[in-house]
Amino acid sequence: MSIETIAGGHLTTPRGFRAGAVSAAIKTKAGALDLCLLVSEGPCAVAGIFTKNEVKGAAVVLSQERVAAGRVRAIVANAGCANAITGVEGYEDAKEMTLLAAKHLGIDAEEVAVASTGVTGVRLPMDKLRAGIPRVAVSEEGGPDFARAIMTTDTRPKEIAVSVGGRYSLAGCAKGSGMIHPDMATMFTFVTTDADVSPELLRAVQREVADETLNMISVDGDTSCSDTFLVLANGAAGLARIEAGTPAAEEFKRALLVVCTHLARELARDGEGAKRLIEVVVRGAASREDARRIARTITTSPLVKTAAAGCDPNWGRILVAAGRAGAALDESKASLRLQGELLFERGRGLPFDERAVSHKLDAEEVVIELDLGLGSGEATAWGCDLTTDYVHINADYRT
Amino acid sequence: MSIETIAGGHLTTPRGFRAGAVSAAIKTKAGALDLCLLVSEGPCAVAGIFTKNEVKGAAVVLSQERVAAGRVRAIVANAGCANAITGVEGYEDAKEMTLLAAKHLGIDAEEVAVASTGVTGVRLPMDKLRAGIPRVAVSEEGGPDFARAIMTTDTRPKEIAVSVGGRYSLAGCAKGSGMIHPDMATMFTFVTTDADVSPELLRAVQREVADETLNMISVDGDTSCSDTFLVLANGAAGLARIEAGTPAAEEFKRALLVVCTHLARELARDGEGAKRLIEVVVRGAASREDARRIARTITTSPLVKTAAAGCDPNWGRILVAAGRAGAALDESKASLRLQGELLFERGRGLPFDERAVSHKLDAEEVVIELDLGLGSGEATAWGCDLTTDYVHINADYRT
Repeated sequence: MSIETIAGGHLTTPRGFRAGAVSAAIKTKAGALDLCLLVSEGPCAVAGIFTKNEVKGAAVVLSQERVAAGRVRAIVANAGCANAITGVEGYEDAKEMTLLAAKHLGIDAEEVAVASTGVTGVRLPMDKLRAGIPRVAVSEEGGPDFARAIMTTDTRPKEIAVSVGGRYSLAGCAKGSGMIHPDMATMFTFVTTDADVSPELLRAVQREVADETLNMISVDGDTSCSDTFLVLANGAAGLARIEAGTPAAEEFKRALLVVCTHLARELARDGEGAKRLIEVVVRGAASREDARRIARTITTSPLVKTAAAGCDPNWGRILVAAGRAGAALDESKASLRLQGELLFERGRGLPFDERAVSHKLDAEEVVIELDLGLGSGEATAWGCDLTTDYVHINADYRT
Repeated sequence: MSIETIAGGHLTTPRGFRAGAVSAAIKTKAGALDLCLLVSEGPCAVAGIFTKNEVKGAAVVLSQERVAAGRVRAIVANAGCANAITGVEGYEDAKEMTLLAAKHLGIDAEEVAVASTGVTGVRLPMDKLRAGIPRVAVSEEGGPDFARAIMTTDTRPKEIAVSVGGRYSLAGCAKGSGMIHPDMATMFTFVTTDADVSPELLRAVQREVADETLNMISVDGDTSCSDTFLVLANGAAGLARIEAGTPAAEEFKRALLVVCTHLARELARDGEGAKRLIEVVVRGAASREDARRIARTITTSPLVKTAAAGCDPNWGRILVAAGRAGAALDESKASLRLQGELLFERGRGLPFDERAVSHKLDAEEVVIELDLGLGSGEATAWGCDLTTDYVHINADYRT
């Protein structure tokens, strides 16, 4: 059974979903979309994964409760203000957001999840939300506006839809460019499907897929307090329910993997100030957990990231970063390839043409392959280079 | 009993130590000192702490063996080449360095520790070392040259000497500017004293002091493969041996704390591209370990570091970084001061004059005080701001 990307597909490509967005002047940039709604015609199975940061945004706290109750079929989201570290008042603001959305959509507030992103420590401009939410017109063409409205320092929206054998579809959008080092989920990732999936299966598959995709990216090692990953399955394709342990469940997982791998790579590629996506493939680790640790540590190393920015084939920095990951590593058994070029083989640096390899590194994607020669553990992680633009963006974000 | 800084003091201020350095053209900069020796007239008690990175430089591996054997009284060090990830040949090169130094100084090779820093993955230029080591003239005025010769991207040497009640002295020098996130020791820190200290006490005190000083600094979160912290005590002051559990031992520990706190702060202040030292003081944590984790996580956060570079009083980033430290935190009990200004009190952001606080942040030292309101755990960590110069330095280090 085939899983195919739908050209121009977006969050409301799956049947029975509508979305829309408006500019409510929450972002400072005049006219920018910053407030959006997604709603399913009928009830949904829902699965959510949220930040593990001890400091949680008010929207995260409320959405966790709503997802646990299991009735979520709509999402109200804003960018420009994270409504985080805002105390009890922030929680009440988040609740009012869902009430406003529910009233506008004609559903219960319990059926609405909420997500807020942007600057922390500042209360939401509730007057703007009270005026803005009733102005959001939702439609089946609203997916791209929704994906655009959740952006902060992102330079472009990230969205994808896939068709599963022409029978049902799965779509997702994501945002996040800084403070990206997800621990159980990334900044915002929203996935819709018109498949009918049991809530238990949806939760299990979501967790497995998150561990291989969104939890394997890093822009700067900072874990946000707003990370939210929601999957809504409304069954509007009218097919039989997908149950655990069946080929259909495997196929659904593969489709979700395609969607989330795409979004994870796009998030890393659009990291603040980034010029290049860095893909780190670790093989031959003593365990899968060791492979994950080493791959992630390499993507977070400022010295590896700056070397990528400067097209510097400095493989020593890669091995030294791997060495501090807290995982088994024996340099005499390790081998390393950079853009396919073998530079280090079982403990020995090989002679190579620095100018030629540097030239190969001047690419949109840099691939680091590290074989540890210890076992069969494998993992892939994604990051981006560290440029002076990252510093500029973050030295001037607030003031 | 008083512990006083000796103006102009250096590594060979304690009696019975001599040092010297030459330019051996290992660094690319013509005429730069890059090869140095330190030697004690008589035998020493020695204590060493080395990197925990799985990838260890050959000098670290050899010095660990020599320190364990307990006879070390001299150090040969070079900058410009780390002799790391160089395999068995690298280890043989390190051994030859100690042989050359021993022959020149008229002592046993077993009495020589070695330290190499600079680019990784490249063999030492042994011809230059064979020619250079016999040219190093050691004297009691050689401390400052030694401190200068071990520098790589450092912009200035870091050294200090203290007098303990006029009876004995303790001196240290350190280097390190990038790849600084010590885990058991920093890049290079060498300490000499003419006190007579039992080796067991020296090791115990060194470990305690390292945990409060050198292990609490971070420039970029990257742990070097060459981190080396050595303390040599030669007893040349001719006083009674300092034994554990005595007031003299407490005094010695306080003196070592003064020396290592100074060096740790200077290392962080001279971080690659840094304009400011960041001091993070955490109080009221559930435990000392929690306080350490939170303090270190704040110093490593790229978003906190870039905010410091931009004089941005973005206290939200500080709390969010604290929240991902893996330590207990309840924002409703936490309070935060920036440069002495209370910006956040028990869960609530306070109104403040952003322009005025931003102006106060434009200083050589930024002090962040976070009170968690949970217990009595305390810790202080040091870091530096992240500027575009860090990226420039590291995007062009090798090629």
